[in-house]
Amino acid sequence: MGRWEPDGEGRLRMAAMELFAEIGYEQTTVAAIAERAGLTSRTFFRYFADKREVLFSGQDEFERLFLAGIEEAGDSDPMAIVAAALEGATAFFPDERRAWSRARQRVIDADPGLQERELLKLSGLATAMTDGLRRRGVDPTAAALAAESGVAVFRVGFATWIAEGEERSLAEVLRAVLTQLRSLVIAPQV
Amino acid sequence: MGRWEPDGEGRLRMAAMELFAEIGYEQTTVAAIAERAGLTSRTFFRYFADKREVLFSGQDEFERLFLAGIEEAGDSDPMAIVAAALEGATAFFPDERRAWSRARQRVIDADPGLQERELLKLSGLATAMTDGLRRRGVDPTAAALAAESGVAVFRVGFATWIAEGEERSLAEVLRAVLTQLRSLVIAPQV
Repeated sequence: MGRWEPDGEGRLRMAAMELFAEIGYEQTTVAAIAERAGLTSRTFFRYFADKREVLFSGQDEFERLFLAGIEEAGDSDPMAIVAAALEGATAFFPDERRAWSRARQRVIDADPGLQERELLKLSGLATAMTDGLRRRGVDPTAAALAAESGVAVFRVGFATWIAEGEERSLAEVLRAVLTQLRSLVIAPQV
Repeated sequence: MGRWEPDGEGRLRMAAMELFAEIGYEQTTVAAIAERAGLTSRTFFRYFADKREVLFSGQDEFERLFLAGIEEAGDSDPMAIVAAALEGATAFFPDERRAWSRARQRVIDADPGLQERELLKLSGLATAMTDGLRRRGVDPTAAALAAESGVAVFRVGFATWIAEGEERSLAEVLRAVLTQLRSLVIAPQV
């Protein structure tokens, strides 16, 4: 999902998403995607291993961005590192991508297999973040907690960002969610 | 995993776990489990749908306990409700169960399919907790955040509880992890 010019990859993404929405993910074939994009199946396979990868290939790039953020954050406090990584990763989701992300989510919500895949990807991200924090000297429990909290903030924030009518940028939403987590967690406990 | 007397179910659990440890989860058959327990395969299927359920059947009971805790918590603050539910759910993991839980985790860690299943169960728990909190009037974002944080605390705490050498009860560990989450999240952010 790196580029948004009407290049081959971009056209294939758009064609796939249209078809997923029109006739459903299961029913959509690679041949139909290629035809809709005015390209050949052979060209499709230059960009994607299969139709599922149209939905997931960008996530690797996103994960790399996220993990780079953990490595490069100037702070040493675990949650500050996570907050910086979240902030950095929002570069991957400019407002122009919101419509795509919203359509993608609709496809995923309709297919239990895709939901599992998404879940496993996010869980893998939490594990990779935990490792990244540990490499920065954070103790194992704090690293796991900060990573899991960061993924929770991302997940909740992302769902808010793609909700109908939401107009704030992902960065603004994530900051608000992080603030909400903070006030939730420090509320007086019984 | 309700009872620990040497009844049929308990004997089958123990026999299964021994075999999973000795020859591996994949290689273990229902017939071998039944034989080791001195019972028939037919008896096995009175208790479990398949060998995987030996590892997972108790989770439904645990999830019910957790969700009942959310419904019945006296407080109305979301994280206090989650903390009460966590506390209540520890009744399901007395110290006598620690050795079993540790052995179970070893089996799961060795098998990607079981890891996925575990992950999906925990994700389902977070969703059910979110719904439970919403039914108690918590707003959607706070409900999702509190539920995801609660599951993160449980996951990290449970891993700590079954670590070699750990002697605190699960309730003590979860309280400590919750305190650690609190201090992580309120640390001064850059």
